[in-house]
Order: sequence, then structure tokens, then C-alpha cells
Amino acid sequence: MTLNPTIKAILDNYESDNPGTKANLARILTAGHLGGTGKLVILPVDQGFEHGPARSFAINPPAYDPQYHYKLAIDAGLSAYAAPLGMIEAGADTFAGQIPTILKVNSSNSWATSISQAITGTVDDALRLGCSAIGFTIYPGSDGIFDAMNEIREMSAEAKAVGIATVIWSYPRGGDISKKGELSLDVGAYAAHMAALLGAHIIKVKLPTADIEQKEAVEVYKNGDWSTQAKRVAHVRQACFAGRRIVVFSGGATKGSDALYQDARDIRDGGGNGSIIGRNTFQRPRDEALEMLAKIIRIYKNEE
Amino acid sequence: MTLNPTIKAILDNYESDNPGTKANLARILTAGHLGGTGKLVILPVDQGFEHGPARSFAINPPAYDPQYHYKLAIDAGLSAYAAPLGMIEAGADTFAGQIPTILKVNSSNSWATSISQAITGTVDDALRLGCSAIGFTIYPGSDGIFDAMNEIREMSAEAKAVGIATVIWSYPRGGDISKKGELSLDVGAYAAHMAALLGAHIIKVKLPTADIEQKEAVEVYKNGDWSTQAKRVAHVRQACFAGRRIVVFSGGATKGSDALYQDARDIRDGGGNGSIIGRNTFQRPRDEALEMLAKIIRIYKNEE
Amino acid sequence: MTLNPTIKAILDNYESDNPGTKANLARILTAGHLGGTGKLVILPVDQGFEHGPARSFAINPPAYDPQYHYKLAIDAGLSAYAAPLGMIEAGADTFAGQIPTILKVNSSNSWATSISQAITGTVDDALRLGCSAIGFTIYPGSDGIFDAMNEIREMSAEAKAVGIATVIWSYPRGGDISKKGELSLDVGAYAAHMAALLGAHIIKVKLPTADIEQKEAVEVYKNGDWSTQAKRVAHVRQACFAGRRIVVFSGGATKGSDALYQDARDIRDGGGNGSIIGRNTFQRPRDEALEMLAKIIRIYKNEE
Amino acid sequence: MTLNPTIKAILDNYESDNPGTKANLARILTAGHLGGTGKLVILPVDQGFEHGPARSFAINPPAYDPQYHYKLAIDAGLSAYAAPLGMIEAGADTFAGQIPTILKVNSSNSWATSISQAITGTVDDALRLGCSAIGFTIYPGSDGIFDAMNEIREMSAEAKAVGIATVIWSYPRGGDISKKGELSLDVGAYAAHMAALLGAHIIKVKLPTADIEQKEAVEVYKNGDWSTQAKRVAHVRQACFAGRRIVVFSGGATKGSDALYQDARDIRDGGGNGSIIGRNTFQRPRDEALEMLAKIIRIYKNEE
Amino acid sequence: MTLNPTIKAILDNYESDNPGTKANLARILTAGHLGGTGKLVILPVDQGFEHGPARSFAINPPAYDPQYHYKLAIDAGLSAYAAPLGMIEAGADTFAGQIPTILKVNSSNSWATSISQAITGTVDDALRLGCSAIGFTIYPGSDGIFDAMNEIREMSAEAKAVGIATVIWSYPRGGDISKKGELSLDVGAYAAHMAALLGAHIIKVKLPTADIEQKEAVEVYKNGDWSTQAKRVAHVRQACFAGRRIVVFSGGATKGSDALYQDARDIRDGGGNGSIIGRNTFQRPRDEALEMLAKIIRIYKNEE
Repeated sequence: MTLNPTIKAILDNYESDNPGTKANLARILTAGHLGGTGKLVILPVDQGFEHGPARSFAINPPAYDPQYHYKLAIDAGLSAYAAPLGMIEAGADTFAGQIPTILKVNSSNSWATSISQAITGTVDDALRLGCSAIGFTIYPGSDGIFDAMNEIREMSAEAKAVGIATVIWSYPRGGDISKKGELSLDVGAYAAHMAALLGAHIIKVKLPTADIEQKEAVEVYKNGDWSTQAKRVAHVRQACFAGRRIVVFSGGATKGSDALYQDARDIRDGGGNGSIIGRNTFQRPRDEALEMLAKIIRIYKNEE
Repeated sequence: MTLNPTIKAILDNYESDNPGTKANLARILTAGHLGGTGKLVILPVDQGFEHGPARSFAINPPAYDPQYHYKLAIDAGLSAYAAPLGMIEAGADTFAGQIPTILKVNSSNSWATSISQAITGTVDDALRLGCSAIGFTIYPGSDGIFDAMNEIREMSAEAKAVGIATVIWSYPRGGDISKKGELSLDVGAYAAHMAALLGAHIIKVKLPTADIEQKEAVEVYKNGDWSTQAKRVAHVRQACFAGRRIVVFSGGATKGSDALYQDARDIRDGGGNGSIIGRNTFQRPRDEALEMLAKIIRIYKNEE
Repeated sequence: MTLNPTIKAILDNYESDNPGTKANLARILTAGHLGGTGKLVILPVDQGFEHGPARSFAINPPAYDPQYHYKLAIDAGLSAYAAPLGMIEAGADTFAGQIPTILKVNSSNSWATSISQAITGTVDDALRLGCSAIGFTIYPGSDGIFDAMNEIREMSAEAKAVGIATVIWSYPRGGDISKKGELSLDVGAYAAHMAALLGAHIIKVKLPTADIEQKEAVEVYKNGDWSTQAKRVAHVRQACFAGRRIVVFSGGATKGSDALYQDARDIRDGGGNGSIIGRNTFQRPRDEALEMLAKIIRIYKNEE
Repeated sequence: MTLNPTIKAILDNYESDNPGTKANLARILTAGHLGGTGKLVILPVDQGFEHGPARSFAINPPAYDPQYHYKLAIDAGLSAYAAPLGMIEAGADTFAGQIPTILKVNSSNSWATSISQAITGTVDDALRLGCSAIGFTIYPGSDGIFDAMNEIREMSAEAKAVGIATVIWSYPRGGDISKKGELSLDVGAYAAHMAALLGAHIIKVKLPTADIEQKEAVEVYKNGDWSTQAKRVAHVRQACFAGRRIVVFSGGATKGSDALYQDARDIRDGGGNGSIIGRNTFQRPRDEALEMLAKIIRIYKNEE
Repeated sequence: MTLNPTIKAILDNYESDNPGTKANLARILTAGHLGGTGKLVILPVDQGFEHGPARSFAINPPAYDPQYHYKLAIDAGLSAYAAPLGMIEAGADTFAGQIPTILKVNSSNSWATSISQAITGTVDDALRLGCSAIGFTIYPGSDGIFDAMNEIREMSAEAKAVGIATVIWSYPRGGDISKKGELSLDVGAYAAHMAALLGAHIIKVKLPTADIEQKEAVEVYKNGDWSTQAKRVAHVRQACFAGRRIVVFSGGATKGSDALYQDARDIRDGGGNGSIIGRNTFQRPRDEALEMLAKIIRIYKNEE
């Protein structure tokens, strides 16, 4: 399969990476219905760890079964499926070779007494389970952020040496950052930039609001036009090395389909690389989720 | 000995595991009177570490001898025997090949100043002692939970590579979890789910009450019917990857035989895989314990 | 991409392998025009090492460039491309993600004073270069065969742990084996079986003649009908664990197209998995090679 | 290329270093327009980590692209370019061999809840990316200074063994040091001296004021003449082993060109080795920055 | 320093290498008077090991001093200097940063009882001594060739990981190769090709004669025109991945200047990358050697 110029251009941006890592990035960029477009839709299912099983799956009980998610991602023609160790182990053999997987290697939970995460998977796990990437969450702003950076530096270096890509979920939280500030534009762009500086190949952040959280940043943002979400996405993309790193946006809490479609359009129009949509898919009935994902894919293909 | 479809179906769920690990799971699933049923009764004797010897064994002095427990488990036709290093070492030769053993590799004690555990055994110990699995306790909710997760990730990866199964005791405790909440349904299901996500082959949790501890979870549970223990067991099983992982329930503090029989019926009716019963056996006279275990086994065989 | 039952059935035969290795086998089995058929055509270019550059490429000078072979394999829609370290390094970045690659990790040469091979690549190289498999040649019958078996045992074990598949080229040679015997049916089947016993995922042997080399084997072969090449292929397939291991056949020295088409038909009719064709492709002009490969692919698809 | 006596004399001061480290120091000392003068101008771009992308680059949007900085440093004929992992990775291949690079291996950020830094790069990264040095920031005075010293001791020892030079950014901060004191002469000289004592090859400090912060130091400074910046620079140079270690001064926050030129003259006249100028370059339009850097270089060449 | 398109194009051929290795190749390609031309002249001084000191240096006694050779290479404006450990150690500090060095990591000697080499240096040595590459000799055809290939595979992999380039001296010798055959065209091209397949960045071979040594190769060479040395060089270049790998030619035994100049013209006209000239330089008086090297450099610059 010859890669088209769009994908070649994206891979060329990862100029310090070995061919193994690029091959895994290429797998993600050529999988599913968006293969070859440079756009991605990723299904992440780490809600069970973060919020517990009932809050995650009770609304759609078939989703208690890890293989439900593999099937959903494959049948919807998504770009990749991301989940913690146990979830990947429960389907990695059945679905080997059917969709690129991202092993979420650290995880928090609702009862955590600090804003931090446990390491729950390794690069060796990713290799034996055939994953194309590891996924790691950092909480910029939290007390434990330096420890987390040390961890991802080690894991990412190990991964890069064996051809595994690195995805960083960068969620500002804790410390001096206000609840509202977690979604502010300056904070979101900064969080994305940190992930890029840490050497991430793919960066996942939340869609930002037009708020500016940091006093010191007000000045630099005041003359910008941040009135539309697409413009805010464009700014986050700028913060990801002017588009040299892939950036995808999370859907956040469950919301209406129309809002999701608008998000996808804004991400597309702002030059973002796509969506990582968890709860908004597996907390809907399968048929409805498939229909919604099909429409989102059409949006990313500029067909809607 | 051909494995019957019930056992084959259970083993098939562990699809990412190597044949060595599956063979050890098969040993547990085919041992004793419940062999081949997919049900398990396991004897755990880590009370000495947790509560001290007198509180554990004075009521039934022969139980001070580690070989007492091996004999009890074998004579009762149980599925496996679980204990800390010293207990296993004191009988592993005499009873080699007679019953699957689970080396409990971490342990707390009554004097612990934190809600945590020490690593007191290793995968190498499990290999040299012929154990089929390692057992590890986590305390979701405690301050040290992330450290414990790091530990079990390492030990479990090591065990899986050499064909040793992993059993996780998941006991919510500490942090914001109330004493009552430790047994609540939402917390129990979440704790079981975390163990599954960490890659456990067998999950051990407590039988939950109908309480809901977490405010955020009230909504998702409010329309469910949790009035019977069997229904609650069914929910925990759901949280264990919709039954893709073996889940057994602990008997808790010593209680009357009838209560234990009812527990077993409820576990059976809810689709749980069995019981792990310590104090309720070895703190009774041997004959009484054997009789009780025989009856529990008949219940799991649907004979009572 | 959902795998079809044909491919699932092949992968199921590798039941002791981890999902990572299966994913790499799946990549080979789903690549190119034969993707999903269970048939393979692989381009191997190790002739330069074995016979020198001029004997390999002078007849078709563009083939001196390693990227020529990558392009040929991709444009022809082949299943994989196999070559030594330097050849893979010279194109692994340009063609990352475009075709599964097999790193040939040992190599002989025309001047070798023993029937043996040097290790010229490693599993680490395979990982950093994004290869799906390592390829290793053994010479059953040679003085050095036990050393070679020790080497592939170590490399294959390392590869399996990190999800890399193993291809064994099994070429009987040396010792008491006569030149004619190298191609005899009993020797060929034996060589294929040894590769299977060594743990190969994919076995490469030569198309055997109807000769029987070993005196001790005459008795067991005498009542068989080995008159057609398809029947001989079927016997070699039998020797590869009754079809549980993929077996592909080499085209040998350059020959006429019609002979190659007949070989492909015989391999197909005998239940072999395909061809590994080197000199017969790159020693022809590119257009002619593409046309020939297209026809061979149609044969394997039962279209001719 | 023969090194001139100026450069040889500087290298001779690093008499305990191996030739690999000296070769990398020589690369920095011979690069760009100041090559061979013993003077340096270094471009550091870690502002994105420290202050976020918009505060760093919004004023000059092309600077969001990491390659902008490589090009600026090369086109301006600077001595080296320093940046964190992600920034270096995004241009290390394109600009390989074009300018010495310094991998900034620790980084803080605006939201840090302690005066500390995360390790975000390693000596192995420096080797694979072709960097001539690692850069490390310490905050003398902060609670975490001993940890930071432990870290740089380990990393610097590792770097020296493989021929990589060490640059220490020494910024007094925290503890009993007042805000004003951070820039005082005694504190600045002390901070520079600590970096020298830690084994730095190149020391980066801020230009000090004439204030004396430490009561115990007043006596020793009272008879000195610290009225000019050049004299203060000379004192800091003294603190860097009487000039046996290279010391460069940071430009601080963006300021007018004339102030920067005066700084350069003072550094030159005081015997300092040069400037490390970040924001004052990349926060100006490229043409203006190039013009300014050209003039600074002329100043260091004694041409203005 | 911006690299020109000639050098960029050469570096691009090393597409699987990390930026560190490319930076070291760039150093060699930009050093000396031929910097930026894509041509190289390298001074190798391993004759002392191979032939003993008197046979190497008695004719020009100043050459007993290792620093003589460093100076000669620097003063002549060569691209690199290659020598065994002791020779490099004796000048690496004095000449740090003045010329790229190649640590010859294996060496033979006149008394060797087998056609083989001892490992006399390591990648760690190369790093501590600031070398840009390791150099390794193989003797294709010899009994020990497979062991040598194993050694260079390991050392080269280690070197590539830390950004050190690999130069392979490929000298056919031993086994069935006749003395005359060592210089034959087919053997020389094959030897160069093997070095390329082993992953060498720079290949060093001897200028071949028009003889064809191997019977099997006669056919493929018979229609070629090998009458001029330039055409033979072009063929060797072809064998080095059609020019994707740098190939330099050795001057062989001491000969007249005119012959050397003609060699250089032929190498240039045939598309070779340059000369590696040892005895022909250091066995001449320094002035004469400098004059000769200046003329060779002018030839490579197309000025003569």
C-alpha cells in the first residue's frame, strides 16, 4: 500500500524517530474509514478505571464486555482503540491485526487521594499485546507533575527505541489552576505544548473555552480573536509545534449529537487532527453510536 | 483428561495469556470436588499475618500447624490453598502435586501504621514452591494504592511471562471511603473492576451490601434492583468484564453456617465463580469444617 | 478491518503465540492483493549477499538500488519484502507502513568456507526498523546445523516475547546429503518439519522432486503417489504440522514464466501457502516482473 | 581545522575532561561567526515550557514552529541552540551537523507548585540526537536544591563518560533569598561558583546588580567597586574559577536593543564569555532579530 | 553552517539512522578542504599494527610520533583521520575538535596465525575520545568471516544507538580466493556490497582490476566494458546500493604520485566518494605528502 502525500508529510514531521515508530504511526493514520486523510477518530475506554464500571457502562450494559469496544471501534472504522491493560488483554488475541491499539499505561481512579496516576502497563506489555502506541496521562499543574514527567520520559524513551509511538493525554488540573481554568484557552494550549515538548507523537487535550486563566497570559491573548471554537483549535494546533505534532481533542462528558458534530466541524476547520471520543460513543446504544461515528467521519472527510 | 466445554470456555477468556498460565488456571479449575464445574472454593490462610496467631488459631489449636490447612483443603476437595511464604514452605514438599497453591506475595499486619502491605514473596518463590498463582492485595482508596498498583503490575508481568496466574484481593479501604462504604455495592463493583483492569486472572472481593457510597454513582444505580445478594453478585460479575474474569467472594468474619450456605447459594445464583473461605473453616473444628465445606460444594454443584 | 474466517483460522493455529506476534502475522496475511486469501507471495532479496551484486542485479541494473525492491514489492501488491540489514535500512523510512518487512538476520556468501551463516541482524534491529518478522536460514545436514539451531532458538524466543514472527528458510545441504538429495521429497519434507519443530511461524522450502534420498525412507514413501508436484507440495504441507504452519516455496534459479505459473498452480493445488520469489522477479525488467507477479497472484486467487 | 591559541587555552582549562567532551566544547567554540574568538552567543528556547507557548511565541507567530529557531540560530551564525526534547526532536534530523545543540534535560513550568524541575531528557537522548551538551537548571536556595544537585551530579557524570558537555543554568530562587536578592552580586557570584563546583563546563547566570543580599557577605564586598556592570561581570567570572570555566549571561526579559548592546559590551569588557539570549531574539521579527544578533556578534568581536 | 544540497542528499540516503549518526557523518562530509563537495580524503594509520613500526615508519622517522599523523591530516585539510586505540589516545586531546576521527576497532598483525582480527577498541572508547566513527575490517572469504560479521553487527548496532557512524574496510582474502582474485572486479564489488548489507555508512575497498575471479560471475561480467578504472569504480559504487552508501578507495602499496593522481581522477570520474590514503602519505616526507594531498584534493574538486 503506497502512502499518499498527506500521510507522508505527517510522518516526515517525526524526523528524529526510527522507522519502527513511523510504521506504527502509519498504521494509525491508514486504519479505518479516515485512513489516508490525516484525520483520526480514536475510541478510548478508560472510564471504568477513572469512574468505575457502573457509571461507565450501566447505561449500555453490553459495554461491560471489553470485546464490545473492540467491535465498536472496528465496525465504526475508527483509527485506533485505547484502553488499560486488562481491557486490551481481554481482546488482543481475538482482534489481533484488526485495529491499531494504544495501551493506556497509567491510570487514576475516583478515590485517588492525590492528583496522580498509577503505572498500570509497560512498553513490554505493548509489544507482547501488539499495540502501536502507549498512552500516558499527565496533569500539568498538579503537585505530582514532575514525577509524572519523569515517568513518561523513561517510558517514552523505551518505547521509541523499540518502535512504539507515544500518546500523551495532557489534562491541566490541581495546584493554582481553577476548575474553570482547566478548560481555558491559555491553559489548554500550554498543556498541549508541554506534551509536545515531552516528545509525544500524538497529543490529546480538551476543547478549550475562550477564557484566559493566567493573569500573565491575558496580555498576549487580548488582541486575538478566540470567538469561535475553530479558532481556538487552530491556536492549540499552533501550540503543538505549528502542526508538526498530531493533536486530537476529547469529547468530554456525554452530550448531544449535534454538539459533537459541531465539535468535529470545529476541530476540522481549525486544523486539528481529530477526535478521541469515549463516553459519547459507548454510553449510547451501539446502533446510535455507529450512526453518530459515521457522521463524524463524514465530517472529517469534508462530506458534511 | 479432556477439559469439558465449561472449563474450555473459561480458559478461552484468558486469550492473551500463554499456555503456561492457562495450564495453571486449568489446574485450579479441575482440582477437587468442584473440578470441571467452573466453580471454586479456595482456602486462604493469611489471618496469622493480618491478625496474629492467637486471634487466628487459638480457637482451634491444631491450626497453628501449617500442614493442618494443606490437609484440610485437600481432604475437603477444595480448588486451591492460598497462604504467605512461610506457610507454603512448611508444606509444599509434603503436599507437592496434591492441591494447587497460591502464594500470597504481599501481607499487612495489625500493627501497620499505614494502609498498605509489604511484599513478602516473589514469583521466583512461587516457581520453586510449585505454586499455580500469586496472590496480591490492593486497597483501592488508600493513599498507597498507586504504589501497590505499580508493584502488582511488575509482579504480574513477571508471573505471566513464566506461566503463573495472578489473583488480586481487592479491598476498598482508606481515603474518602467510609467504613460502611467498604462493603457498598458501587464500591465493591469498582474494586473488582480495577482488579480486572490491572490484569488479574482471578478476582477476590467481599460480598457487597445494597448501599451506594459514591454520590456520583447514586444516579446510575437508582433504577436497578439490588434487593437480593444474588443480584448484587451478578453486578460484580458484570464489573469483572461481563464474566470474562473469574470472581470469587470472601466469607468475611466468622459467621453461622446457615449464613455461609446462603452466601454460597447467592454467589452461585448470581453467576459468581465461588468462595474463598478462611476463618469460617479453620476456626471451626476440623470435622465441622469438612462437613460445612462439603455442603458448600454441594451447593455449588447445584445439588442443594 | 475485520479479519475473515480464512485468516482467523490460520492465526488460531499459532495458539501459543502472544497477540503481538499474531498481529504481525495478520499484517502479512492481509497485505497486498492476496490479503485475506491465506496465500502469500513474498519478495526476498538476499541474493546480493549469497551470490554477489553483479550476479544478482547486472541483468537488471535498476535493482542495484535497494529502494527498487521495496517499490517492486509494493507496486506488485505482494505480502512482504525480505532482505538483510543494509537493504532494509536503505528504505525502511521511505516505505514505513507500506509493506510488511522481514529482516533476514543471517546470511551466507559465495566464499563461505563452511556451510553456515553469519548473524547479520537482530530482533532489536527488527523492532527499530518496524519489521514484522525475522528470517533465518538453516542448512539441515551441514556440520554447523546444531549451532544454527541454537542461534535461531535464542533469536526466535527473543522475537516471540516482543511480538515479532519467525520465518525459517530450511535448505538441506552438506554432510551426507547428495546434491540431488537436497531437492528430494523425503529430505524436503524433513527439512520443513525441522523448521516447524524449531518453532517457525512461516516455513520456506524448495519445491521437491519425486526422488527419495534416504535409504531408511524408501519403505515409507514407496506406496505413495508422488507423480505430480501438487502431491509433493501436499506432502510437505503435511510435514508442516498438517497445515498448522504456513509454508511457502521458493522459485529457485531463474526460469521461464510458464514454469513459474505451473509452480504456483501446483503450490495452490497442493495446499501450500504461496511463493517466495526473488531472482525470478528482480532479474526481469520491472514491467515484465509486475506482469508475471500479477498473473501469479491471479493463480493464487484461483482466477487462472 | 587548526584551533587557534584562544580556543586551545580555553580547552586546556578543562584538563580533567576526556577528548570527547573537549571535542564537543570545541564544536561550540568554533561554530558560527564567533567561532575561534572564545566568545559565545547561544539561543535557548525553553520559554514554551517555562511560560507557555502564547506568552513565548504569540508576538512572533512563526516561532511556534521549532524549525524557526534552528534556522534563526544557524542564519545568525550563533554558537549553539538549546531546547527541550520535543523541540530538538522536531529539527535534529533536518539540521544535523549544522549547529551544535544543547539538550535542556530538565524543565519547570508556570504552574509548578514547588521551585523545582522535572527531568525531561537524558544523556542517551543527547547522543541519539547528536547534541554537544546537556543543559540543566538548578535553583540554589530552593528547598529542592539538594535533589537537583544529586540529579545533575548523576547526569553530568554520565555525560562526561560519553563525551557530552554540561551546561548549568544557575538561578538563585526560593528559601531565604529575597526577590531582589536573586539578582544581587553576592548571590549571583555564589550561584555561578556552585555551578562550577558541580562540574559544569559552561555556566549560565543572570547579569547581577550591585546589591549585596547576604548579611555575612557585606563585609567582604564593601571595599570593592561594583559600580559598573563590567566590574560585576568580572567578579562573576572570578567566581567561575578565575575564568577557568566558560560563563555566559542571560538577557532576561525582553528589553530594548540598546540595553542588550550595552549588556554585551559589559560582558565583553568584564571578561565574560558571552550571551545566552532567548526571548530577546525570537520575540522580535526575524529580520530585526538577525540584525540585532549581528550587532551583538560584532560587539563580541570588538568591532563596535 | 547551512549544509548544501549535495551533503543533504548524501545524508538523506541514511534514512534509518538517528540524527546523532547523521551529525557525525555531516562532520566528516564538511571537514577539510573537501567539505561540502561530497568527496572525502581520509588518512588511515593502522600500518603499525599490520606491518610493524619499522616497516611503516622507518622511511620517514617523524611518523613514529602519533601526533605527526594528526598534524598531517589537519594541515592537509583532510576529511578524517583513522587509527587504532593507542594512536588516537596519543593525540585526541591535543587535536580535539580539529578533525573528525575514526577509531579503528579491530586490527590484525603480521604474526597472525589466522586471517582474522582482534577487537582492540570499543564504541565507548570512540565516545570518550570524541571519534565520529568506528572502523572495522572484514576479510570476506576467510574462515573467520562469520565471526567477524557477528562482531561488527554487535558493535555497529551499539554505535548506531549512540550516534557513532560505522566504516567497514572490506578486504577479500583467504579461502578459495586467489591472491590475484583479491583485486578482481567481481570480488571487489561483492566485498563492497557485503559491507553495505552489513549496515556500513562508509565502505572502504581497494581499486579493482579488470579480472573476474569467480567462475560463476564470468557470464554476468562478460558483456560489460571494464577497460578503464573509472568504469570499474562506477561498478563498485553500483554495488554500494547504487550510490546510496559512501564508498572510498584505498591507495594500496606505496606508488608514484602520478599513479595516485590518476587513481583519484578515476575514482572521481567513476562516481566514487574519495580516497583513503595511508602509506602513500606518511611514508613520504611531510612536504611532499602535503603537496601530493593538495593536488589530490584539487582533483576531487575538479580543479585538475
